[in-house]
Amino acid sequence: MHLSFSAVIEILGTMAFTVSGAFSAMQKKLDAFGVLIIGFVTAIGGGTLRDVLIGNTPVAWMRDLSVPLIILATTAITIGFKNHVSNLKITLLVFDALGLGLFTIIGIQKGLAINLNPGICIALGTITGCFGGVLRDMLLNHIPVLFHKELYAIPCITGGICYILLKPVVEPQIAEGVSVVVISTFRILSVRYNWRLPTV
Amino acid sequence: MHLSFSAVIEILGTMAFTVSGAFSAMQKKLDAFGVLIIGFVTAIGGGTLRDVLIGNTPVAWMRDLSVPLIILATTAITIGFKNHVSNLKITLLVFDALGLGLFTIIGIQKGLAINLNPGICIALGTITGCFGGVLRDMLLNHIPVLFHKELYAIPCITGGICYILLKPVVEPQIAEGVSVVVISTFRILSVRYNWRLPTV
Amino acid sequence: MHLSFSAVIEILGTMAFTVSGAFSAMQKKLDAFGVLIIGFVTAIGGGTLRDVLIGNTPVAWMRDLSVPLIILATTAITIGFKNHVSNLKITLLVFDALGLGLFTIIGIQKGLAINLNPGICIALGTITGCFGGVLRDMLLNHIPVLFHKELYAIPCITGGICYILLKPVVEPQIAEGVSVVVISTFRILSVRYNWRLPTV
Repeated sequence: MHLSFSAVIEILGTMAFTVSGAFSAMQKKLDAFGVLIIGFVTAIGGGTLRDVLIGNTPVAWMRDLSVPLIILATTAITIGFKNHVSNLKITLLVFDALGLGLFTIIGIQKGLAINLNPGICIALGTITGCFGGVLRDMLLNHIPVLFHKELYAIPCITGGICYILLKPVVEPQIAEGVSVVVISTFRILSVRYNWRLPTV
Repeated sequence: MHLSFSAVIEILGTMAFTVSGAFSAMQKKLDAFGVLIIGFVTAIGGGTLRDVLIGNTPVAWMRDLSVPLIILATTAITIGFKNHVSNLKITLLVFDALGLGLFTIIGIQKGLAINLNPGICIALGTITGCFGGVLRDMLLNHIPVLFHKELYAIPCITGGICYILLKPVVEPQIAEGVSVVVISTFRILSVRYNWRLPTV
Repeated sequence: MHLSFSAVIEILGTMAFTVSGAFSAMQKKLDAFGVLIIGFVTAIGGGTLRDVLIGNTPVAWMRDLSVPLIILATTAITIGFKNHVSNLKITLLVFDALGLGLFTIIGIQKGLAINLNPGICIALGTITGCFGGVLRDMLLNHIPVLFHKELYAIPCITGGICYILLKPVVEPQIAEGVSVVVISTFRILSVRYNWRLPTV
């Protein structure tokens, strides 16, 4: 039950990340293959970078065929129904925020499993959640929005600290669930109220 | 005989990829070292990314000194004879297309050797063939041409499917040879007739 | 004594690289988190790429918490005292050049330790010294200055050749010290006298 709940969020998160990449690619007038690759990189980039940095290879998407298939199907649907998909803005924001939360916690767990320092694990979780979007922006020749426009990393770090603090004192599912909710809620509120970090 | 034939194509392909990178760098007015690095990244970027993703390290060019030496010599020749090299446009296109074909098949073989799913192996072969050019374009601050201007990946995927289908039923050299020819021919025709994928 | 001298240079070099990244990020009006990430990537990017290419994972900064902490503190100081830090231009150039020298030699040593060819080790050292700046420029959407504006790699290669030649004939500390001085001095002179490689 616990596993399958995480699995559902992982699928919804992967779909939301793919849609975000595919839309950015369509705005830049890429061809269908370019849209697929940008969707793919947005969805799996963070986890792939994490796996490469810790030496967990072949990287995750090569061992679990369901992820590439979900991305392929999501890209096809996004291209086919692009006018309708853009009406799902709020639904997608929620899925995206849930995915951000779950991917962050998964990244932290992978770091803890190889005994990295908790602070490093939070960085690793944040990389997992956020760097697919950084790679998307690099491929599309933007400065990553993560660095100047939107609040992605601060929610991940906040939720990551919650997870590290809760894990020794409550059941694993509760630590996970609470942290995912903290990250998602913080992310959604930051979009809703247009929170920004100050430039310096 | 078979091995040495592949080896010749690999050298010609490496040279053609290096020339393509070096020319792009010269158009951007980079210095001699920049031209070398862009040539180098274009030639070995795809195979390096493949090796990093599957954990095959140290990456290939670090273990086979002949590859860096060929790239160094090719860059020097390209800089020294830049006006003459640009007359070799068609020769370079043929070598580039043969290299694309061979590198794709080598990538697929590396994936099969560690028992990855055939679909993932085709993705790995396509990364091997195509991502040197993606890295070149990222370093030169373009959106990768692969994503909107030129047909690179579709020939690789088509030839990769041929290889996976032929491999169990014919001799290895024939499966390899046919697939390389499919990829190269498809690539050359796509340039000749200016085939594009639709934007979406 | 020898170790602690290297350690001091490593800390000063890490700080100088972080400041260089943080300043570039502030010029692009990034937010505080963006400034931190660009500082971080500039400081550890070269060593991280080296570790990934040779399979030395988890990469170095994940195993030595002092490095992320130094970067975090340096970024905070740079943001807090940004008007004063810019007066330290010459001090920072010296630290940056010393860091470039030391990081290059550390990269060469990591390559020699796994029996890579000495030429490849010099390339690995140059990647260690220079590619943090390349990643910084890619994230900030520039063509890397390394490729057209400044002399970074030639000093690294020159000092690397010194190190390879001296290592078998003198004591390790002397080979290291002389090579770091060669790289740093060459780098500082190239800035002072505005040396450039020719474009081609």
